[in-house]
Amino acid sequence: MEFRLDRAIEVLRRTPETLRALLAGIAEPWARGDEGPETFSPFDNLGHLIDGEETDWIPRARLILARGESVRFEPYDRFRHRSRNADRTLDSLLEEFQRLRAANLDLLESWHLGESQLDLPGEHPALGPVTLRQLLAAWVVHDLGHVAQVARVMAKQYGDEVGPWVQFLPVLTDHRKPRS
Amino acid sequence: MEFRLDRAIEVLRRTPETLRALLAGIAEPWARGDEGPETFSPFDNLGHLIDGEETDWIPRARLILARGESVRFEPYDRFRHRSRNADRTLDSLLEEFQRLRAANLDLLESWHLGESQLDLPGEHPALGPVTLRQLLAAWVVHDLGHVAQVARVMAKQYGDEVGPWVQFLPVLTDHRKPRS
Repeated sequence: MEFRLDRAIEVLRRTPETLRALLAGIAEPWARGDEGPETFSPFDNLGHLIDGEETDWIPRARLILARGESVRFEPYDRFRHRSRNADRTLDSLLEEFQRLRAANLDLLESWHLGESQLDLPGEHPALGPVTLRQLLAAWVVHDLGHVAQVARVMAKQYGDEVGPWVQFLPVLTDHRKPRS
Repeated sequence: MEFRLDRAIEVLRRTPETLRALLAGIAEPWARGDEGPETFSPFDNLGHLIDGEETDWIPRARLILARGESVRFEPYDRFRHRSRNADRTLDSLLEEFQRLRAANLDLLESWHLGESQLDLPGEHPALGPVTLRQLLAAWVVHDLGHVAQVARVMAKQYGDEVGPWVQFLPVLTDHRKPRS
């Protein structure tokens, strides 16, 4: 499937509501369970997505579109949310994510990006040269990866409860070493 | 996390709305893309979940609770949905799944299952002896596995569009051999 801005936005608009359906008001053990040390709970995944709204995707797109002397991105802090959200509730994060995402997508749409703009270059601090199109495609895939991660982390909370069914439930065993 | 019926139902009730938020009205390439031959698209995942409502979880729970001479389950057909849903739309499957799931959970709640009933035995045709508790835990994990699978399959449609970001997006590479 080739990248199309409208098709990308179509998915990006759905993520807050998807996570709300899965998580709003859910019991703490589901919201806070993780896959072990240094892994993300559903609550952490949501904090990480909020960090992306504030520090990653749109700020990097702005940098590319500004066409200044340097198009090198700021490194992204994967653990910014840990201290930021120490006193927050899951439901308040859901609301914040929904608000930030809606504003970011309204901004993205207001740019009316054409093909030549999508080809503009940026520089990732670790990955090197990238394009605006790749940045926006990565935003979509990153969202879906975290939806999948939230579901997987929740599934693993019942890893010991399914008995012999574990053989038929690859979501429990396909990520022995969890990656986010 | 130990199995609790109310905590299980809490998750099972969310799956239809989660899939609706992710998929209702979405463009065909997102709905119908898959991971290669013999793998499930989001549309197929939904068909498979409907098959589960009609032929798997509740019918097997009924068999266990009936305490008859045999508690051996009927084998489950993973491809029943292929012919069943050939002419259906994604949105009609979303509605059907929501209706079937709501009725099945109402029934499950109406049984007011206690601990001793949750320990009752069944016999899986491939896995051998199981309990009703394990069946219900597997239902929850199975749901979450398919939510994760839908998100993963959608992500992979942009596998070639993210450029060098593929290194940082494990959802694209952690399942070289997709399992459902």
